[in-house]
Amino acid sequence: MVNAQLSVSLDGYAAGPHQSLEHPLGEGGERLHEWVFAAEEGSADAQLVGELVTAGAYVMGRRMFGGGDGPWDLEGGTTFHFVTHGPESALERARAAAGDRDVAIAGGASTVQQYLRAGRLEELHVHIVPVVLGAGERLLEGVGDVRFEPVEVVASPAVTHVRYRVLP
Amino acid sequence: MVNAQLSVSLDGYAAGPHQSLEHPLGEGGERLHEWVFAAEEGSADAQLVGELVTAGAYVMGRRMFGGGDGPWDLEGGTTFHFVTHGPESALERARAAAGDRDVAIAGGASTVQQYLRAGRLEELHVHIVPVVLGAGERLLEGVGDVRFEPVEVVASPAVTHVRYRVLP
Repeated sequence: MVNAQLSVSLDGYAAGPHQSLEHPLGEGGERLHEWVFAAEEGSADAQLVGELVTAGAYVMGRRMFGGGDGPWDLEGGTTFHFVTHGPESALERARAAAGDRDVAIAGGASTVQQYLRAGRLEELHVHIVPVVLGAGERLLEGVGDVRFEPVEVVASPAVTHVRYRVLP
Repeated sequence: MVNAQLSVSLDGYAAGPHQSLEHPLGEGGERLHEWVFAAEEGSADAQLVGELVTAGAYVMGRRMFGGGDGPWDLEGGTTFHFVTHGPESALERARAAAGDRDVAIAGGASTVQQYLRAGRLEELHVHIVPVVLGAGERLLEGVGDVRFEPVEVVASPAVTHVRYRVLP
């Protein structure tokens, strides 16, 4: 299964304005992720953070790294491969690496949009953070008339987590 | 208590593009409200529809009526007053009319934004509809750095309802 999960502001931004190497999430964008670090052990939020790392492979946009060539081998058996032959090619390599496990499109928003437009995304898990960024990169820009079905909703005092199935 | 509730698309629009007298919700905007009419008796959605009509008074933007002079008296004791002295004046009249009951800011989005900017809105109830409109009137445009706290989340197969307290 190919899924993606992103934190999004109440006004629909997945990152703040003026993204750069120093501010990869844009100005104010870190406010979208505070819940991850503030999650208390055993809480609903903590359980969802745990699920972030269960995929068999992750596909990320190059901008998430500020460029680079790779492959980079990290400790713990993680390898970053840089795929420059487009999203389909990256997805095929990720599927092969993941085996029976899920492939997660790990952002940013423009990468998620690419896979949505290509009809490749099966689930979108949105973490709705109750802040207003006012500007930045929108989660669902230019994806056309996609329809979703909410299949799971988890509420916490900080964030509302909605898992959507992408309808064909 | 002064509250507002609005249906919003997953990409953050409270109405579609090209709003007009014929299409007050804009193109495609009726998709945001289909859940209201499709709600089955006894369902979570139906209960929320029932709550729509419990306020003691409603404040609506003039555009919702396409202009007009009023007061208009409807059957059942409802009177429309047209207040042209600004949002504070309209709110005061609504408070007086509502007595102990709530005042609902009943839209559109620009009217809700006015009361948010003025610090007058205490609760915002958002019905998140899993469609993508791609263009139109955004729910939270130009409201500044408002902070919200989710106080109730109700999930249905069609819509995710989140009631937010507006933090001071």
